Amino acid sequence: MNVYDRMKEKGIVLPPAPPKGGLYSPCKIVEGWAYLSGCGCNMGDKVYKGTLGRDFTVEEGQMLARNCALNLLAVLEREIGDLNRVKAAAKILVLVASQNDFYQQPEVANGASGLLAEVFGGDIGLPARSAIGVNVLPGNLPVEVEAVFVIA
Amino acid sequence: MNVYDRMKEKGIVLPPAPPKGGLYSPCKIVEGWAYLSGCGCNMGDKVYKGTLGRDFTVEEGQMLARNCALNLLAVLEREIGDLNRVKAAAKILVLVASQNDFYQQPEVANGASGLLAEVFGGDIGLPARSAIGVNVLPGNLPVEVEAVFVIA
Amino acid sequence: MNVYDRMKEKGIVLPPAPPKGGLYSPCKIVEGWAYLSGCGCNMGDKVYKGTLGRDFTVEEGQMLARNCALNLLAVLEREIGDLNRVKAAAKILVLVASQNDFYQQPEVANGASGLLAEVFGGDIGLPARSAIGVNVLPGNLPVEVEAVFVIA
Repeated sequence: MNVYDRMKEKGIVLPPAPPKGGLYSPCKIVEGWAYLSGCGCNMGDKVYKGTLGRDFTVEEGQMLARNCALNLLAVLEREIGDLNRVKAAAKILVLVASQNDFYQQPEVANGASGLLAEVFGGDIGLPARSAIGVNVLPGNLPVEVEAVFVIA
Repeated sequence: MNVYDRMKEKGIVLPPAPPKGGLYSPCKIVEGWAYLSGCGCNMGDKVYKGTLGRDFTVEEGQMLARNCALNLLAVLEREIGDLNRVKAAAKILVLVASQNDFYQQPEVANGASGLLAEVFGGDIGLPARSAIGVNVLPGNLPVEVEAVFVIA
Repeated sequence: MNVYDRMKEKGIVLPPAPPKGGLYSPCKIVEGWAYLSGCGCNMGDKVYKGTLGRDFTVEEGQMLARNCALNLLAVLEREIGDLNRVKAAAKILVLVASQNDFYQQPEVANGASGLLAEVFGGDIGLPARSAIGVNVLPGNLPVEVEAVFVIA
């Protein structure tokens, strides 16, 4: 099934690719492997700051992780032109800015990996994943996600 | 040397693969590269919670990191059937839930990379590695390890 | 352009490869992919301890991240002999030991990715990157960087 038909069916719309915040390649493709730099959860004018366990609920965190995945796909599409070229979402790392007693990083991370499964289907889209807490992320972001895709 | 002979010789027994805790692939294999989702240190009924530098000693942490590696191998074996297919343990990331003044993450991580070297021998089994502290991990786990293997 | 000519032109001198701090491969090469274990920012006798936002300024952090990249290249050169064999700096992960209210990890990370771009040129040298805060790193290091390169 065409990726864009699936997205249309589910009402998934990609945002513009987020601006670059430093000296790096947003998407570096080498021998068919696309390494995507960590994307935050800000989208357009909407800026999110804070940590899980204090400033955001788990449900809000899931939405924020989903935003990160949408930003990643926007960067990838800008680079490769057509998301149907994705052969696999291999791996994501979900970083959750967390209070010391917030333990639900995996539930938050489902917002990102779930979006990939929706867009590409489970076989291609469901990646290996680690979801971890950190005390602080760039710009006081609550969630950041990096990814590795394989491209045809 | 056969991996299972080596394990028998050293008394290493794999646990059942741990249950999945979210929307992800426990082991995603693409073009011979096996990305393994982060595994915690719980094993069977035994559940560990807390941080290094307060709730666990370095020696306990090494045992916990070893548990993570055993869980990773259980997941990998379930996926590929025979651990003799492993051509290389390429990379592990060892995440240690740490008090702000706990600095011995590498000693803890030796429990994981040492187990891989025992099982596969040093050339194949000793991976590149980063060992880092984080303030908190999913479910209040003290140690989590993710891995990349290459499979024949 | 020859990597060593470019380094000479810019006055970049590699340090001796840092000593190994545990059971791991400093550089594990599999099928042309070189996984480099996390390198800290200590160099020779010079040892750095502390966190960003308290013990080091952003500018100092950039120098420390640059040190990490120099250490990574020293390890890589020892392993492959000639840095002209590098086809791509695919990905780096920059770990910044951070106070809870330090948000400028990307600026710090520019010290590492910028050095790679200087040495290899932008197309080859500018990697995908994530820059994250953590509460503590091994040996109380302020900055640690791990990397993935592709080798001819």
